[in-house]
Amino acid sequence: MEINEILNHVKSVSKKMATSTYNERKQILENIAKLLNEKRQEIIKANKIDVDNAKEMELSSAVIDRLIISDKEIDSMIKAVQEISMQKEVLGDIISGSTRPNGLKIRKVRVPLGVVGIIYESRPNVTIDSAALCIKSGNCAVLRGGKEALNSNIILSEVISEALELAGFSKECVYLIKDVNREIIKEMASAKGLIDVIIPRGGENLINFVTDNAKIPVIMHNKGVCHVYIDETADYQDALSITFNAKVQRPSACNAMETLLIHKNAVDNMLVEIANMLQEVDVDLRGCPEVLKHIDCRPAIEEDYYAEYNDLILAIKVVENIDEAINHINKYGSGHSEAIITKNYYMAEKFLNEVDAAAVYVNASTRFTDGGEFGLGAEIGISTQKLHVRGPMGAEDLTTTKYMVYGSGQLRA
Amino acid sequence: MEINEILNHVKSVSKKMATSTYNERKQILENIAKLLNEKRQEIIKANKIDVDNAKEMELSSAVIDRLIISDKEIDSMIKAVQEISMQKEVLGDIISGSTRPNGLKIRKVRVPLGVVGIIYESRPNVTIDSAALCIKSGNCAVLRGGKEALNSNIILSEVISEALELAGFSKECVYLIKDVNREIIKEMASAKGLIDVIIPRGGENLINFVTDNAKIPVIMHNKGVCHVYIDETADYQDALSITFNAKVQRPSACNAMETLLIHKNAVDNMLVEIANMLQEVDVDLRGCPEVLKHIDCRPAIEEDYYAEYNDLILAIKVVENIDEAINHINKYGSGHSEAIITKNYYMAEKFLNEVDAAAVYVNASTRFTDGGEFGLGAEIGISTQKLHVRGPMGAEDLTTTKYMVYGSGQLRA
Repeated sequence: MEINEILNHVKSVSKKMATSTYNERKQILENIAKLLNEKRQEIIKANKIDVDNAKEMELSSAVIDRLIISDKEIDSMIKAVQEISMQKEVLGDIISGSTRPNGLKIRKVRVPLGVVGIIYESRPNVTIDSAALCIKSGNCAVLRGGKEALNSNIILSEVISEALELAGFSKECVYLIKDVNREIIKEMASAKGLIDVIIPRGGENLINFVTDNAKIPVIMHNKGVCHVYIDETADYQDALSITFNAKVQRPSACNAMETLLIHKNAVDNMLVEIANMLQEVDVDLRGCPEVLKHIDCRPAIEEDYYAEYNDLILAIKVVENIDEAINHINKYGSGHSEAIITKNYYMAEKFLNEVDAAAVYVNASTRFTDGGEFGLGAEIGISTQKLHVRGPMGAEDLTTTKYMVYGSGQLRA
Repeated sequence: MEINEILNHVKSVSKKMATSTYNERKQILENIAKLLNEKRQEIIKANKIDVDNAKEMELSSAVIDRLIISDKEIDSMIKAVQEISMQKEVLGDIISGSTRPNGLKIRKVRVPLGVVGIIYESRPNVTIDSAALCIKSGNCAVLRGGKEALNSNIILSEVISEALELAGFSKECVYLIKDVNREIIKEMASAKGLIDVIIPRGGENLINFVTDNAKIPVIMHNKGVCHVYIDETADYQDALSITFNAKVQRPSACNAMETLLIHKNAVDNMLVEIANMLQEVDVDLRGCPEVLKHIDCRPAIEEDYYAEYNDLILAIKVVENIDEAINHINKYGSGHSEAIITKNYYMAEKFLNEVDAAAVYVNASTRFTDGGEFGLGAEIGISTQKLHVRGPMGAEDLTTTKYMVYGSGQLRA
């Protein structure tokens, strides 16, 4: 089938999904969890083809790691789907409502987006995750995964199709596109009127390719260049422990710190201790000229301040005052997660108000920016754009609104 | 100045605007209203250059009409700015908040988008309107109006600049781009990190040009292909009066009806009466084969069903049942405003739930889709997309959210 024909078909089945009940959608999700459990061997077998191919093509061990599905990964997928199935309904809430002077009753109601396009890379669990969040929110989904994971994605999408049909829905409510050419991404991203929103989940290259080619709305999870700023009044213990947690606890996460900013008046008290603590666990430091006066490390260059290392590397910069820190963050940061360590009320408020990011923290680690930690349930990513949703994105963020207007013959004068 | 330099400068002044108080922003708006009143003669004089040029270039009388600023238009601009200035604050609301098990206090707070780009065509009042809504919502604005209105836009932007400076803000918080080449629109629409959202206000060509070239998020007001569906149980008087109102009261509006759908069982009772009523006020009808059996008019072709006439023209189609009506609307409609006339509860609910549009009406005219009529105050347009905002867009829709997280040393485990 041509892509346009597919998308028209998915759109045609989306009305039933959009008007389904909570219990119907719950049934689909329970079917997925059950079938994942029943088809473990088939899934692992299909996945082995992908893993073997990847080894043969000598892909990096990181890529192969992300590709592997063992019983443990299947358990995680089942758990994720079950959690999503038990979350409260995200559709049908009346967000606002009023009765106008002429008697028109206006209700702003939460409804599904319609058809969501998701473009992703090597992790095959994204197939299950994305499908589950789309179904939860009454959306149909068009999925296009990475070519390394094609066999895994096909078997997982067959599980989803069977789960849909068992619940009385068209199996095309979640449609996996098997064409692995990049051209197909362009076509998806141009499908005005057929796909309502497109979500790229992956590295910067994929995201840029989608945003550069999109003619339909995109929700993007861009990179995380996150900062911790140690103010002059920072508590010594908090400064050390939060710095350590933000950098070391999981350096590959997008909410890990990449640059530490430190007030000049805090330098004497803590810079050397922080550096020692980090270097002891092999963090590679890159310092501004002021830092180099106290610490033996590589000098930081301009590119370091823009870098998302996702690794045990940290740039450190001494700043004159909070304004320099905020300006640095607003210039080099990616609008993801930013923290200040301070005991001063006014500095805390200034930082919260003036830093332009999805999540801004006082005296806590940047590592908390996450759907689960924020109490939103499973997330489809962390939006670093400002339109529609900002920060962790859950099922509710895959919805829009519709004005339902109840009249009794009103005419516009 | 190069466009990039301009946008960097606007971004740099946007922090002060974003953190300004309600009263400060109110003062700017009051200054604009006052200066518009004081500079009437200068504005009308500058506008006359544009109008004379337009006449010399033999632009259409519709374009020239939209271009003219007389005392009446200045009065309207002043009134709009005053109304916006008196609306309640749209910033700083806590949309949701929770305290997590570890003691982190999470607040989701409404904040400005940052820098809004607005690209528009010949109406110079859009300069004032857009600037006022952006200022109200704490945003800076980069405006790029049509070349026909350049002299008018320059004097109006000078008024805004003076109003900003009188209130202690940088005059570049609202920046008018005077370059009238189309290339500049592409550059604005590609300004990742400098413009947070771009809003095209104008015809379909402009909107397509912006969405096709955008690498940053767009909020678009697309065309309005709106329907009224007369169900078999429709009240006779309501069917006639709502049809008349939706088509005739202001045919140039985007929420005016373009196609009338009528249930086959309602044909005998009302089709001829409706046709007579409309033909009497010179509505040009285009009927499906079934309609042509009863009425003397042009046959409707496929293109008629996609058309936004914005004029006294109406396509009429007889349908077998409500499903055919809903499918027709979801296929040919533009997702703007749709109405059913019915006495049947289940048909009303089915229509409300299954029609995919920004506003769906039971027993009322589609003409009500409007910020003022919905009680939202001044609007910057009517969004026909599903991301961020759908339907009439007011100052609050020019905002996003930020998570502010209050900690006491929390670390991620």
